[in-house]
Amino acid sequence: MSAVEYTVDGQTYEGWLVMPDGKSNVPVVVIAHAWAGLGENEKQKAAIIAKEFGYAAFAVDVYGKGKRGTTVEENQALMNPLVGDRAELQKRLAGGLMAAKAQPGVDGSKAAAIGFCFGGLCVLDMARANQDVLGVASFHGLFRPAENIPQPKITAKVLIEHGWLDPMAQPQDVLAIAKEFEGADWQLHAHGRAYHSFTTQGANNKEMGTVYDADADRRSFAYLKTFLTEVFG
Amino acid sequence: MSAVEYTVDGQTYEGWLVMPDGKSNVPVVVIAHAWAGLGENEKQKAAIIAKEFGYAAFAVDVYGKGKRGTTVEENQALMNPLVGDRAELQKRLAGGLMAAKAQPGVDGSKAAAIGFCFGGLCVLDMARANQDVLGVASFHGLFRPAENIPQPKITAKVLIEHGWLDPMAQPQDVLAIAKEFEGADWQLHAHGRAYHSFTTQGANNKEMGTVYDADADRRSFAYLKTFLTEVFG
Repeated sequence: MSAVEYTVDGQTYEGWLVMPDGKSNVPVVVIAHAWAGLGENEKQKAAIIAKEFGYAAFAVDVYGKGKRGTTVEENQALMNPLVGDRAELQKRLAGGLMAAKAQPGVDGSKAAAIGFCFGGLCVLDMARANQDVLGVASFHGLFRPAENIPQPKITAKVLIEHGWLDPMAQPQDVLAIAKEFEGADWQLHAHGRAYHSFTTQGANNKEMGTVYDADADRRSFAYLKTFLTEVFG
Repeated sequence: MSAVEYTVDGQTYEGWLVMPDGKSNVPVVVIAHAWAGLGENEKQKAAIIAKEFGYAAFAVDVYGKGKRGTTVEENQALMNPLVGDRAELQKRLAGGLMAAKAQPGVDGSKAAAIGFCFGGLCVLDMARANQDVLGVASFHGLFRPAENIPQPKITAKVLIEHGWLDPMAQPQDVLAIAKEFEGADWQLHAHGRAYHSFTTQGANNKEMGTVYDADADRRSFAYLKTFLTEVFG
């Protein structure tokens, strides 16, 4: 595993690559980070994907090298400009995807993307923008549509792992994204007792609705494994 | 595989048992039939569960021996009285469950139930009535609540495999069952392009909204396998 620098539009970003042992020409799973920026949680998921699933894992960075948040205010200050400028966000994601595909040992024809919270919104945007991924999977992601793609024509397979009690993506938002994605090959897995951040170990803020849930975490990753097996064929 | 007669309240019912080869003391999966009554489709699912999953499969009969439908009118005439009298339906299901657990080679402490269409409503009722099953899985099931259990306290794990385009269980019905099952360990898997009857090979009536879907069929059975592995521990 190693940090990997890459540039998009002249700005430097720092991703994180984990390769599976003793394999080459493997599919790659791009990992989009939550609002704090690429950190331990994404690195941990990358390790699981390489070690247990046998794919290359490349955690992208959409904030820029060294730009990470440590407080709610910092996280919001990093995230909100991109949630409000989806064309810019999609450009940075496309750059990260290109970097992922260019890593030695990666089969650049087989890429998928997964993301957590804000990263869920990121990978849904990769699908909306028809970036070159076979499938995307969102975990407790935000569903807010992209203002620059009002009627997406999605070709990637889509898996949405969703905590039904998530205050940041409520039942009416589920109905809305189902409508937005109509015609695409999408699945939404609702976990009845899960809140936001159900895959984030240690999360336990009921007031904010961010709570780790071992059942939903384990189940959703098992579903991801099945999904990626299908996606990479 | 063999037909198995059993009685509930003095009436005779005819189920269908399939045991996995060369195994004994195995968990049992009860299969609840669609509106036409126990037929080829349920027998086929029983065979898959025994052969590919390695569990005993017992398809129950809630209509009575020899009572099967062959037309829409006959099916409705068989189903509607039970949809309208859920206490009676639950009694027949409990009888079928007891017969399943009593089969030779079955570990009666480990039972789950799955059902299709009307059979989905049946297994959700088994959960609502707290019958002795560890888990229930509904496939394109009907969500209509049981009038005799207005506030169910569900202890079984619940998996709902649902076609988002199902005209018999629409988005508002999804919201309603999520509310009804609040607090229980439930999951709902929405398949974005699937209609009703997505597991029924040959179904292809777009007007009625009953359409076989190979993707949703394959995926939902893979999820069932994972679910049963967890449920039987």
